[in-house]
Amino acid sequence: MSSQEWSIPETDVLGAIHDACRSDRQAVLATIVRVKGSAYRRPGTKMLIDSDGNGVGSLTAGCLENEVRSLATAVLESGESRVERFDLSGDDDVWGLGIGCNGVIDILLEPLTDTFEPALRAFEDGENGTVITVLDSETETFARGDRTYYHDDTSEFHDLVGAWPDDVLNHLKDPASTLATAGNAEPVTIDISGSAVTLFCNGIAAPPELVVFGTGHDVTPVVKLARLADFRVTVVGFRSAATTGDQFPDANRVISSSPAQIRNALELDERTYAVVMSHNFVDDRLALEELVQSPVPYIGLMGPHKRFEEMLEAFADEGRTFTETELSNVYTPIGLDIGSGAPYQIAMSIVSEVLAVHNDRSPDHLRNRDAALHDRIDIELDKQSQ
Amino acid sequence: MSSQEWSIPETDVLGAIHDACRSDRQAVLATIVRVKGSAYRRPGTKMLIDSDGNGVGSLTAGCLENEVRSLATAVLESGESRVERFDLSGDDDVWGLGIGCNGVIDILLEPLTDTFEPALRAFEDGENGTVITVLDSETETFARGDRTYYHDDTSEFHDLVGAWPDDVLNHLKDPASTLATAGNAEPVTIDISGSAVTLFCNGIAAPPELVVFGTGHDVTPVVKLARLADFRVTVVGFRSAATTGDQFPDANRVISSSPAQIRNALELDERTYAVVMSHNFVDDRLALEELVQSPVPYIGLMGPHKRFEEMLEAFADEGRTFTETELSNVYTPIGLDIGSGAPYQIAMSIVSEVLAVHNDRSPDHLRNRDAALHDRIDIELDKQSQ
Repeated sequence: MSSQEWSIPETDVLGAIHDACRSDRQAVLATIVRVKGSAYRRPGTKMLIDSDGNGVGSLTAGCLENEVRSLATAVLESGESRVERFDLSGDDDVWGLGIGCNGVIDILLEPLTDTFEPALRAFEDGENGTVITVLDSETETFARGDRTYYHDDTSEFHDLVGAWPDDVLNHLKDPASTLATAGNAEPVTIDISGSAVTLFCNGIAAPPELVVFGTGHDVTPVVKLARLADFRVTVVGFRSAATTGDQFPDANRVISSSPAQIRNALELDERTYAVVMSHNFVDDRLALEELVQSPVPYIGLMGPHKRFEEMLEAFADEGRTFTETELSNVYTPIGLDIGSGAPYQIAMSIVSEVLAVHNDRSPDHLRNRDAALHDRIDIELDKQSQ
Repeated sequence: MSSQEWSIPETDVLGAIHDACRSDRQAVLATIVRVKGSAYRRPGTKMLIDSDGNGVGSLTAGCLENEVRSLATAVLESGESRVERFDLSGDDDVWGLGIGCNGVIDILLEPLTDTFEPALRAFEDGENGTVITVLDSETETFARGDRTYYHDDTSEFHDLVGAWPDDVLNHLKDPASTLATAGNAEPVTIDISGSAVTLFCNGIAAPPELVVFGTGHDVTPVVKLARLADFRVTVVGFRSAATTGDQFPDANRVISSSPAQIRNALELDERTYAVVMSHNFVDDRLALEELVQSPVPYIGLMGPHKRFEEMLEAFADEGRTFTETELSNVYTPIGLDIGSGAPYQIAMSIVSEVLAVHNDRSPDHLRNRDAALHDRIDIELDKQSQ
């Protein structure tokens, strides 16, 4: 298979897994469940391998994928899930030099079943959830592959495979919710009546949404790059004629609205990022007025700072002034300062800025950062179930 | 035509113009030659319109394009170049609200001839040059459309259309060279024997080169985004078997080399940006040793900081230490701190970082930047030709 299919956006990997769930095709799902030290990808990263050995998604930069494919064939034949450890820590001559990531990676391989489907359906519906899977169990009450799905919107567990006691589920609720919101994944070992049970808690957060207000030529590169960066993308046209879906084939949806009505037309929440680039002074200004009253954490406004000042003057003439808090989420001129000139460079500076705000980062060079590269979620599991 | 064709990388626009130059097809070249105030695109931005009215490239976000197409038809019919002014400053009700960019844009429309070809050929060969075109002339010695091409590698003027006196050319050499290197464009008015002649000096810098050392799955997104951001991209494989061109269809070239031989195999100059991601500790280390001895301004090294420290220790064991200057161009962990996890997000953090280094910017939010958004080149033309 070509490298093009391995390296696709994460949302497309989940989409491919969902398609496979709904079909009758046999496939194996490989998931990174534990990383010690550093590795290219994080726990929760998935790869789907079909019965012909074709894969979608990548667990590493490519060094382990052949090995994973061989194991997948064995899993398909036996129908048994397994957890495999790859020691890339450098002490092991086989893998150490090949990856150079100083990590130990555990990978769960399992025959794909529809037990994963509720999580994927929720993901596509824009909802967060956590898939909890038994990796190892000292008690016969649980078997590897037993699973339940925590749906964060309802705070309920669904689709239980295996005999999950209520107190265990109650105990898992808080960490499952934390992981669901963050889209992070962790293995945890809990004690059930004196026996250790290791669970993989795989939070799957719905993709954040980028809403682009505008339908100019300069919108196309923003939509394209935002999709590659795993945003769900909505294009909003303020002139209905301009918003045929054909113009933006990469967008998840294209809708029409009046700028003063966008809070009614759209669900503008904390996971929505707004890019205002209609190039129309009046429309941009009306949209801005709506957006500052919404909970969106990012309002990027295309145009020079002078244009924004003129907007504020026009507002002031109408008696509307803004507080510092209201303006704190307004980013104008839009984008990171990377010296962009061409349309795709401008789009890259915008999408990079949205990523930085979404991930709460100061967009400096990583070499200047002291903290760990990947945020870790500390989940509370000290009060263990008895 | 679809928005997809308007918004393509700048290198692809120049490629399309070059193709049209070499064909017998009639077309009109539209170029932004002057911007007062702010506008979406800078002087030198080009759009090609064929005889069917189809366009490649975009001069604005779309508001002027229909107008430019109508004018192009007139230019094709008359065979006469023209300069058109669009006042988007907001005082003008027709364009003002539509663009909201507070700018006045002058656009040169001319029938495409092969006088532009030398510049495009040089661009594809990785060389810088400046196309100088007469926009307006008070003297009959010069006519609109007269042109010459300054080739920066040879410091010579070529392909003169019109009667260019030697002293005028000598006078233009320095600014032409400055603009060629920066890839910037400016209109300038010079005095020739008491008559004003306005020239458009259009520097066309060869695209910077991004060299990726590595052939893993994670290379594909870097190649794809770098190409969209107008880099020329070379993929270098350290195992000849891994470097078939098919694996990286978006790369300009794919070559094999030994890591210790890269300074011989490649022209590593001040406009080359290196991304080291072979995921092989030994290969990355050998490549790094070569790169720090080259003039490349950017050496991005994939992997955690700990891995880099281990490399430095391995060097130290061999008696090789590095000066601060040698390490100043090494960026590791690679990329901007935008919280990337998925392959395309990581690639975006890398390409954004390379753009920032290339453009000598601190990659903060643009809203925190005081300076003008676009760098201006001050060219010395005070000693006017007599």
